[in-house]
Order: sequence, then structure tokens, then C-alpha cells
Amino acid sequence: MQITALSGGVGGARFVRGLLRALADDPDHEGSTVTVVGNTGDDITLFGLRVCPDLDSLLYTLGGGVDEAQGWGRADESHHVMAELTALGVPPQWFSLGDKDFGTHVARSLWLGRGASLSEATERLAQRWGLPDRGVRLLPVTDAPIETHVVVDDEAGGERAIHFQEWWVRHGAALPALRFTVAGLAQAAPAPGVLEAIREADVVLLPPSNPVVSIGIILGVPGVRDALRGTRAPVVGVSPLIAGRPVRGHADACLAPLGVEASAAGVAGLYEDLLDGWLVDEADAGSSYPARVRVRSLDLLMRDEAGAARIARAGLDLAAELR
Amino acid sequence: MQITALSGGVGGARFVRGLLRALADDPDHEGSTVTVVGNTGDDITLFGLRVCPDLDSLLYTLGGGVDEAQGWGRADESHHVMAELTALGVPPQWFSLGDKDFGTHVARSLWLGRGASLSEATERLAQRWGLPDRGVRLLPVTDAPIETHVVVDDEAGGERAIHFQEWWVRHGAALPALRFTVAGLAQAAPAPGVLEAIREADVVLLPPSNPVVSIGIILGVPGVRDALRGTRAPVVGVSPLIAGRPVRGHADACLAPLGVEASAAGVAGLYEDLLDGWLVDEADAGSSYPARVRVRSLDLLMRDEAGAARIARAGLDLAAELR
Repeated sequence: MQITALSGGVGGARFVRGLLRALADDPDHEGSTVTVVGNTGDDITLFGLRVCPDLDSLLYTLGGGVDEAQGWGRADESHHVMAELTALGVPPQWFSLGDKDFGTHVARSLWLGRGASLSEATERLAQRWGLPDRGVRLLPVTDAPIETHVVVDDEAGGERAIHFQEWWVRHGAALPALRFTVAGLAQAAPAPGVLEAIREADVVLLPPSNPVVSIGIILGVPGVRDALRGTRAPVVGVSPLIAGRPVRGHADACLAPLGVEASAAGVAGLYEDLLDGWLVDEADAGSSYPARVRVRSLDLLMRDEAGAARIARAGLDLAAELR
Repeated sequence: MQITALSGGVGGARFVRGLLRALADDPDHEGSTVTVVGNTGDDITLFGLRVCPDLDSLLYTLGGGVDEAQGWGRADESHHVMAELTALGVPPQWFSLGDKDFGTHVARSLWLGRGASLSEATERLAQRWGLPDRGVRLLPVTDAPIETHVVVDDEAGGERAIHFQEWWVRHGAALPALRFTVAGLAQAAPAPGVLEAIREADVVLLPPSNPVVSIGIILGVPGVRDALRGTRAPVVGVSPLIAGRPVRGHADACLAPLGVEASAAGVAGLYEDLLDGWLVDEADAGSSYPARVRVRSLDLLMRDEAGAARIARAGLDLAAELR
């Protein structure tokens, strides 16, 4: 079976890791492959190096190198490079990268600088993390450099746009967002293999990633949304909100400027044109969902890898029902 | 007093550190300033980052951050970035950079990428290391990117050129050098302040740096040699060879392709047109030197900072005699 998942960073990576475990645990799924289409909308150039937070969270989590407590970055990290950059007064000081993590960014920037595409750079990183051996292909949604900016009020009564990472990391998404703009998105072509992976999949899964700045960006790459609408595969999503609150991250702060209710039903509405199945938490079982979407409720808290596998299995079961 | 020193890496840096100590120890030298013109001929782009080994050895040594045993790189280094690059299979694997050192290269590459000159980048690094507070100005000899290549025999009976660092670090200068070529040297302009520092100095010192690939490169930047010939300041050098052997490094292997004898006298011959005073080891007191050069012999082994200060003091004394 060919499964395609559209993923943001930490939550999506944990879900996909659970999916791999669910597949490995079930003999019926032997030989299944998973294509992960990763969000690149929060990519950023820091210290002259290209950083792809969501792709890296996917690589490290699926490859067994992630800092489990944090959910992103490398396990057993040190911060000597960063300390030197701080001593040199190089901004920004609000985004700290570990030393091993720097290795990733140095290598990726080197390859990109020599003309490799982000897809090619990502493939080399995926090799290092053993993803192909586990039947996983990781694709950036686009090779075009796109960047999400957040428009916020400035102190003079006007507006200013800041990089998504500055809003998310530095301000903890606490500055009210007026809107999101994604530089380069309208001209971005899907990376090689992305549309095919959606069209030719047996199942498409939407992990519990941020519906606006992760999956929303992926859906915004021209051609991707149409491919999801057109695929014969059932499209099954997992709500990133439980009882109106994000399991992790700041999905509520991202939904507000869109005027969308921060709830499992609100997010389902965003996906209504392409969604066939929707997993919600038991707390949200009683809400009203779009008529064409088949809803299943279960405990959606991903406490650990086994919990993520349980939820992924429910997604595969719902997809099987819908097929 | 304004002292200008032309310096390579480790040996030159240790000599200049001794010079600063000699100046600090002598009330007559209060208010003296030292301009160090650093060699950039062995600069190299590694992993997409610009590395300036000699400037960095000067910064770290004069700033108190050097790995004393090694003479280059940072004290208490770790190598996590490098380990990741190795895991990713990024060549070259024969040049290892520490994590703190990576911080320097990331910052410099960032600044250069944004249009700063090497002089400007070096000035910011010198600030971080407190050099201006110690009366030291560090100038790269040129802002133009120059690179030394070593022509060696290839296995097929022909010749091939390799980067100087590959010859020096990977092969330990053990492959016989046929000749050195310096890409960009003929077109390189002296960096701002270099010629003035030589012309307006009260004393010019040549530390015991490599006469071919360090001081030889500095002298090869158009205008520098003429400035040394024309300066009214006495030019006093320190032999990098004792009894025909380099105190450190591979000066002998560098002199061979020039047909110059590996000796204090041989090196003095290379500098004959610009040299006024020459410090040699007691072992070399009996050799024959160019007639116009005043020679003094003393113990030239720089065992520690005090030893370097002792030699620097001898250089200043000889310069005072010559002035």
C-alpha cells in the first residue's frame, strides 16, 4: 500500500512515526511505503544557512535522532557554535540551533549553494537518517524558497510583517496575527513527485499538524489542493485540536485571523472540499461536521509512540472503510 | 611607537603575542600600537564557509582563546558539527574544524555573503577578541580571495595542482612540491591600511613565519614589497629556521622548489632587498649573510610566551640600533 501524508513539524513527525510503527506491527501492511510531503513554509535563512524546521523535525524524529522531550532538534545537543555567534553579536539571538543541527544546515546550505534542489538536499539527508530503508520517502512540498510572514500591529498604529519563526519562537505566537502572507507561494511549483504521490496514493493522511501554517501552506502550493480533490484515495485527517485547544503549538492563534473557530469542526471546515474521513477526540464527538465527511472519535492525545500508532491505525481503518 | 608585523599563522601569532608582552613590560613602549598584516594565501572555502587559518590563529592567540598545545583552533573544543558532516559524507574529511571555530566561519561567511570585505569581517572578529583594546589592529594583506595551490607529480607521470591546505594538512607537506601558484595574487590589491602601515611604521617586523607560503604570499601582493623597500622604518626579521630545520611547520619543504637553501642564510637571501636586521639562532651565527643586513644571534626557540617576548625584544633592540 502506498500512503501519502502531508506533514508539518513536531506533531506531524510524531504521527508519521506512529504510522510507521502501525504498519510494521501489521503483517497485512508488509511492503507498504510512506511518502511524506513536508511543509517548507516556515523555512528560514539564519546565520546565512538554510534551516527547514519541519523537514528537520521529520528527519530527526523518523531517523531516531530527535530530542524527545523537545520534539525538535537533536538529542544530546551542545550549543558551542551558537555561543560563539552570540559572542560575535550575530543576530538573531532568539533562535538557538544546536551543534549537530548546525551540521545539517551547513551541509544543506552547501548543497543548495552548489545548485542542488531542496528535494535533492532532502534526499541526501533522508539517506543519512535511513528513511529509504524504512520505506519512507520525504519530499519538500516545493523546491521554491517560500517564507511565511505574519502581519501584526506595530506600535505606531500601523502594521508590520515579521518572519513566521520570529512570531512563533520569539513571541510564542502571543502577538495577535492580523493575517499570514507567504512570499513566493503563488509562484511555487510542487516539488518533483508531490502531485504523483497524492494522485497515486492508496490512502492520503493529514496528521494533526497546524491547519494554517503547516498543512495550510502545503495546500496553498498551486496544484496540491486540486490533486487532493481529484485523488481516488480516501483523504483522512486527524484533528489538531481537542476540545478547542491545540494539543501542541498555537493552532488557535493561527485560526483566529482566518475567522475560523478553533475546534475540530472548524478545521474540518477548512478541509471540507478534500476530506473524506476525520478523526476527532471523544471530547469533540458531539460537534457538527460537514455532511460529506465521515467522522470517528477516539482518544487523540499522542502520549507516546504507541499512542501515535493507535491513532494512525484508526486513520488507516477509517480509510479502509471509505475505500 | 607604531610597529607593523607581517605574519603567518601559529609561529607568527606566538611571536606577536610575545611582542605585545615585551611592549607591555617596557614603560618606554607605553602607547605603542601594533598593526599585524596577516597572510590570507592559505584561506580556503570548506563546507561552503570561508576559513582563514592564519587570521584565525592570530585572533585566537592574541585574544586568549587558542588551543595552546595545538597552536591553532580554539581551546576546549568539541567537534559535533564535524561529526554530523562526516555522517552526511560531506568532503573533505581531512580538515577538521571545531564547533567554536565553526562559529567564526559561519559569522565571517555571513558577513562576506552580505557584501562585507574581509577587512571588515576581520575587524568585527578582532573586536570580539579584544584586539583594539590591546592596541592591536589586524589587517588581512588583501581583501581579494587568493588561494595557494601546490603543483605535485600525479601518478600518471604528469602534474596536478592541489589546494595548499590539502598538501599541508592532508599530506603533511610530504608530497614533493614542484612549485606554488597563487590564484588571484597578481590582481590582488593590498587591503585598506596595509601599505600605510608599512610606510608609516617606526619598525617593521617579520616574525618567524614561513618565508614562502606565509610571508612570501604577503610580499607577493602587488605593492607590498615596494612599500617594504621604501619604508624609512628598519625592517627586522626573525629566522624561521634553526640549524637548517624549521622550528615548526614545513618551511624546508616549501623552500626546496624555489631552489633556496633551507637555512637562516637562505631565507635572509629571499628578503635581501628589504631586510635591514636579521635575528638568527646561535647555531647559525657563523653563516654568511647578505652584507647589507645586520645580523644578531640569540636563542631563537620560542618555548613559551616569555621566550617569544625575549626574541621580540631583541628585534626591537636591533631596530633601535638601525634607526
